[in-house]
Amino acid sequence: MTGIVLAAGLGKRMRSNLPKAAHMIIDRPMVNWVISSLKEAGVDRVVVVTGYRAEIIESLLESDILTVRQNEQLGTGHAVMMAKDFLDDEDVVVVAGDEPLIKPSTLREMVRRRREADLDVLFLTMFPPDPSGYGRVVKRDGKVEIVEERDASEEIRNIKEVNTGIYAFRGSFISDSIGSLRSNNEQGEYYLTDTVGMAARADTMIIADAEEVLGINNRAQLAQVARIARKRINNALMEAGVTIVDPETTYIGPNVKIGIDSVIEPMTFIYGQTTIGQNCLIGPMSRIQDSKIADNVEIVRSEVLEADVREGARVGPYSRLRPGAVIMEQAHVGNFVELKKSILGKRSKANHLTYLGDTTIGEDANIGAGTITCNYDGKNKFKTSIGDRAFIGSNSSLVAPVEIGEGSVTAAGSVITDDVPPYSLALGRARQINKEGKYKKNREEKD
Amino acid sequence: MTGIVLAAGLGKRMRSNLPKAAHMIIDRPMVNWVISSLKEAGVDRVVVVTGYRAEIIESLLESDILTVRQNEQLGTGHAVMMAKDFLDDEDVVVVAGDEPLIKPSTLREMVRRRREADLDVLFLTMFPPDPSGYGRVVKRDGKVEIVEERDASEEIRNIKEVNTGIYAFRGSFISDSIGSLRSNNEQGEYYLTDTVGMAARADTMIIADAEEVLGINNRAQLAQVARIARKRINNALMEAGVTIVDPETTYIGPNVKIGIDSVIEPMTFIYGQTTIGQNCLIGPMSRIQDSKIADNVEIVRSEVLEADVREGARVGPYSRLRPGAVIMEQAHVGNFVELKKSILGKRSKANHLTYLGDTTIGEDANIGAGTITCNYDGKNKFKTSIGDRAFIGSNSSLVAPVEIGEGSVTAAGSVITDDVPPYSLALGRARQINKEGKYKKNREEKD
Amino acid sequence: MTGIVLAAGLGKRMRSNLPKAAHMIIDRPMVNWVISSLKEAGVDRVVVVTGYRAEIIESLLESDILTVRQNEQLGTGHAVMMAKDFLDDEDVVVVAGDEPLIKPSTLREMVRRRREADLDVLFLTMFPPDPSGYGRVVKRDGKVEIVEERDASEEIRNIKEVNTGIYAFRGSFISDSIGSLRSNNEQGEYYLTDTVGMAARADTMIIADAEEVLGINNRAQLAQVARIARKRINNALMEAGVTIVDPETTYIGPNVKIGIDSVIEPMTFIYGQTTIGQNCLIGPMSRIQDSKIADNVEIVRSEVLEADVREGARVGPYSRLRPGAVIMEQAHVGNFVELKKSILGKRSKANHLTYLGDTTIGEDANIGAGTITCNYDGKNKFKTSIGDRAFIGSNSSLVAPVEIGEGSVTAAGSVITDDVPPYSLALGRARQINKEGKYKKNREEKD
Repeated sequence: MTGIVLAAGLGKRMRSNLPKAAHMIIDRPMVNWVISSLKEAGVDRVVVVTGYRAEIIESLLESDILTVRQNEQLGTGHAVMMAKDFLDDEDVVVVAGDEPLIKPSTLREMVRRRREADLDVLFLTMFPPDPSGYGRVVKRDGKVEIVEERDASEEIRNIKEVNTGIYAFRGSFISDSIGSLRSNNEQGEYYLTDTVGMAARADTMIIADAEEVLGINNRAQLAQVARIARKRINNALMEAGVTIVDPETTYIGPNVKIGIDSVIEPMTFIYGQTTIGQNCLIGPMSRIQDSKIADNVEIVRSEVLEADVREGARVGPYSRLRPGAVIMEQAHVGNFVELKKSILGKRSKANHLTYLGDTTIGEDANIGAGTITCNYDGKNKFKTSIGDRAFIGSNSSLVAPVEIGEGSVTAAGSVITDDVPPYSLALGRARQINKEGKYKKNREEKD
Repeated sequence: MTGIVLAAGLGKRMRSNLPKAAHMIIDRPMVNWVISSLKEAGVDRVVVVTGYRAEIIESLLESDILTVRQNEQLGTGHAVMMAKDFLDDEDVVVVAGDEPLIKPSTLREMVRRRREADLDVLFLTMFPPDPSGYGRVVKRDGKVEIVEERDASEEIRNIKEVNTGIYAFRGSFISDSIGSLRSNNEQGEYYLTDTVGMAARADTMIIADAEEVLGINNRAQLAQVARIARKRINNALMEAGVTIVDPETTYIGPNVKIGIDSVIEPMTFIYGQTTIGQNCLIGPMSRIQDSKIADNVEIVRSEVLEADVREGARVGPYSRLRPGAVIMEQAHVGNFVELKKSILGKRSKANHLTYLGDTTIGEDANIGAGTITCNYDGKNKFKTSIGDRAFIGSNSSLVAPVEIGEGSVTAAGSVITDDVPPYSLALGRARQINKEGKYKKNREEKD
Repeated sequence: MTGIVLAAGLGKRMRSNLPKAAHMIIDRPMVNWVISSLKEAGVDRVVVVTGYRAEIIESLLESDILTVRQNEQLGTGHAVMMAKDFLDDEDVVVVAGDEPLIKPSTLREMVRRRREADLDVLFLTMFPPDPSGYGRVVKRDGKVEIVEERDASEEIRNIKEVNTGIYAFRGSFISDSIGSLRSNNEQGEYYLTDTVGMAARADTMIIADAEEVLGINNRAQLAQVARIARKRINNALMEAGVTIVDPETTYIGPNVKIGIDSVIEPMTFIYGQTTIGQNCLIGPMSRIQDSKIADNVEIVRSEVLEADVREGARVGPYSRLRPGAVIMEQAHVGNFVELKKSILGKRSKANHLTYLGDTTIGEDANIGAGTITCNYDGKNKFKTSIGDRAFIGSNSSLVAPVEIGEGSVTAAGSVITDDVPPYSLALGRARQINKEGKYKKNREEKD
């Protein structure tokens, strides 16, 4: 089964330098919503027809997606012609690249019905409150035809059933008929709709929920479709046992998995390939992307990107986990703390104003407030290692490469440039001098 | 007057490991909304019937709430039987634990009407657009009866008035009749609704606003009910003279008090026993819980938990006040600053990148950027004291226990381990050495 | 052409200490929305009639706005009397100060129609679903009259066309007739509506969209009007090619300009005179006010006030740019970093836990994590200068006034009090001492 996605258009009313299908819906481009729906519907091979700034669309696609370029935009029929090398005896499903809400179940049902009734083509229709602008579906004498509004008589304009632009073709029929299309119309374009009239056996399937075929022609519709997509995802999660405190202000991508009894607080964004376990508290004001969050984790008001947070860990508020951060079981990351390519061991804590880069920390260690790992010398990055039960004093600077042994202590305010053996105290700071009474006069005068 | 809350259920469609009434609405569990409504309606004694994971519900209740366990869940009548020791001659109000929006005024009116009309039972009904699923109210020959849908004839199913599950009983009637319930029905359950049919004198009260009896059976309804609860609270605050910039994205608990002309910006959470004075600016993106905020305070994009912020103080953006933080009059807490069990004196400032723990700061002091109080040695916490008009240099580490005298200055980058007498200068840092020209060659080569 | 804004009222139902027209809608007071609409409609001279706490309204106005005080509030006619010195032969437009959604195009059209039909007065009317409370428009015998509800007969109360309180007068007519108003009514007030009855030639203009004349009488309406105002602004931006991910949670002021293909993420506030270029990514959770943002800029989860961010710069998450921050091309500001009156040069980076105040940084410099410029000695502020390609080690304290030469390096944890020549290394820290094995026994015992 082949799916063809029409994604050549600019989308003039988007007023954009991007091709229309490249605009984002939640966490992935519009075109990938359509592709994902085709794949879930059972399509083996997806061909995307690109055109306007083709390279942008191409760069958004996964490697198993085929593309053909439609260098001149001469209509939907012309777009499918570009893919003619991929048309064979298998089913062909053609979808518009700007209808991202189409459901796999709808596409699957279209194919099923086409096969069952042995049709050349079955296409999806609807009955909108106002049909103007749409191609009308004319059924007479056992034939079906789609007539574009501009070519429609008064009588045909009164027809309420309209084309939504989604088709299930018999492979042999579309590969034959696509070559017969002619552009002898006012626009000089090849209309895919004309194939319907050529079919010996054509029929329509009426979409149950018109939301599925909401097209995107401007940014307001982009926002509207995104809202519907979010609502679908949030509803499915709530049904599966996730508490979403305010679904209106919660932004979750279609590939996210969340366990039961996890609570998602408002203004939280969970994107990409993220999995979250059970009984977690996420948000408010958290952003998590492409991360793995275990059970019983708290992530409050934090940023988490490509990180791994283990069972019972607590992150936030105001934490930032960057790629490669691993927060082990029961560990704590606190406010104004950043981790990058660093492991914080079991039950270890980094609770205040800390930067940990390229650092491995053992279990039960305490990283004092204001600790900075100096992992960069302007050219290269170096590693820091901190042993189990180590205690890093506040405002320490750990100049990498450096190793702090297990059970060791660094004194507050120290610059640690050399390795510290296990169970040792490292100091690197000046002795305090008090100049007593120095300010007495001045300060009093000031006051 | 006794109130009985039915909170034994799991709520299967919640798909949760929690009993249904334990789920949170804004800042407190569902069961406590119902209890609070009963108390405000004048109920003296509340009995909660628990069942599924009874210990969880019990742990959520205040100490004055009585509980009984229904170990087998044999219906609503059976649940009330469990509370039979608390039934006497006083009024008994029975409410479902999953209808948290019921208003005190409604319960009070039910009791009033029951007494006035000398009824055995008065129960709350409504006329939903679609009555299916509900028990129908059958009134004939001066008698009232509730017939469950499964037992209803076609004729009875056409009745539009339905039971909402909220009852005001004459004490003597319910204590007598509850023992007469039988479970000889298809479900093998004891139905509380059967008591109505036993009453010599029963009547209904129609709820004016069906929102009050919205039940919660799944997480979508949990979110919907929470939205309505928030709307009620926000509307009441706006009516009382509080500006809520966007009520749709503002989350305020039922016990919060806010003075007139305070402005609450979006994505702000104000929970628990929080009071906020007049003319404050709160938010956006602030979370305040169980705190006391005086007049003319600004709290912008900050976290505030169990803190006390006095008149004219300014907090945020990106501040975090933890339990025991006291911000005195006109004091300032700035960005990336955390306070815990610390007092910041009048007009004092801690404006940048600072951690203050177990610290008392006098008036007119200035805490430099990057100051850290080293209050923890890995085992115990120690105290820091900073006098009036002290000036703590940037990047200072104050190693507790330590006392900085009034009017004293610590030099930037110092580690202060010993007390500093008043009006003194304390230094604890190395002298700077310049290795001139050291990088000339290398750096140029790099570029 | 003169515009008169009636802004004397307290707005009792606001329950506020502020005059009603001083309340904020998005980023400016209500009265300024009305003034702005008048100016855009072509009014040359705006006169605001103040009354209740006149000084507050006066303080909100730009310098070209005239004001008159109505010390006693004796009705709308009396308010216009106060402005009689500004009435001449030119057109006079009178608007209520609490209808901020009125569009310039509507006002312009009112004036055009009044002139074209040579009317004494043309006023704006509507047909609300429920007319009660409004003054009814009575048209008979070629005359038009406005009858307040309290003075209206049953027959007149049935009239559906009502007054919205917005008038276009012939200058000579209003300056003559305003003096003839009498307060011999029940309220003892001078009604501006009475002038309509005095006109030889009067007519109405029906407002197409009743939203434009939504009045604000309480805080719920304040929130509702603000929502509509935001929607208008967001829709206009989307139409112009800006992606607003969730228009419901995006707060943009009326004077903001944004270039095409910029994406505005949720919970973002863009206020004041801000311009944003093309292809920017702004938000989520960003606040930007009175700033200049060039093309291809990213500002994520940050605060930006009176700052200038140049092409390709990246800011956030958790950054704060205060007034006078200039982020040059391709520069990076990272998490927990604050800049005030500071320039970060091209391609330079300040990525972690840093405070830069009164500092100028050259190109390609790297400011290490935890760097603090010590720009304040408790009395005065001093400047720091950092040259091109300088490398400031982590946890450095730069004690201003101080100059770090180009290509120089400061060692991690150093306090820099003296200037550093170009291409030099500056150290200011103690040597590390390890007290080996000091903790062995204790720590093991503890464990």
